[in-house]
Amino acid sequence: MKFFAEVEVMPHKEILDPQGKAVKLGLQNLGIEEVDDVRVGKQINLTLNAENEDEAKEKVEKACKKLLANVIMESYSYKITQS
Amino acid sequence: MKFFAEVEVMPHKEILDPQGKAVKLGLQNLGIEEVDDVRVGKQINLTLNAENEDEAKEKVEKACKKLLANVIMESYSYKITQS
Repeated sequence: MKFFAEVEVMPHKEILDPQGKAVKLGLQNLGIEEVDDVRVGKQINLTLNAENEDEAKEKVEKACKKLLANVIMESYSYKITQS
Repeated sequence: MKFFAEVEVMPHKEILDPQGKAVKLGLQNLGIEEVDDVRVGKQINLTLNAENEDEAKEKVEKACKKLLANVIMESYSYKITQS
């Protein structure tokens, strides 16, 4: 079966996010003043083959832990849907 | 009112995504073989002040068009929730 996975990887809340700070400044320069807590992360979309949803979850979990996210600095979440 | 916006910026489907290709290769090296269509984009989360949801949408739309996404190469979508 084919599954579609959407993975979101964001920097931990306690960790400084210089990219987010830059975006906040950029938005303020655009006139969008009342912005706060800007965090920039990654979005990874992929399709994968698996026997069932549990196997798909296992694969995505492994992908997140070993490649997509640096678990020391980032947290991840994902949604899996059958496609 | 405070709103929380989650913006997703992804490369257009027609556009090559070398980062996605690299992730696909990395996953295959990890033993996650049956992966396809890997696309890597950005996720930007922010909170903003606005009078109502329409104004919040307008602000986020402007932010996407002028700063967060390069509309020639990327498409964006967002979700706004009151926080």
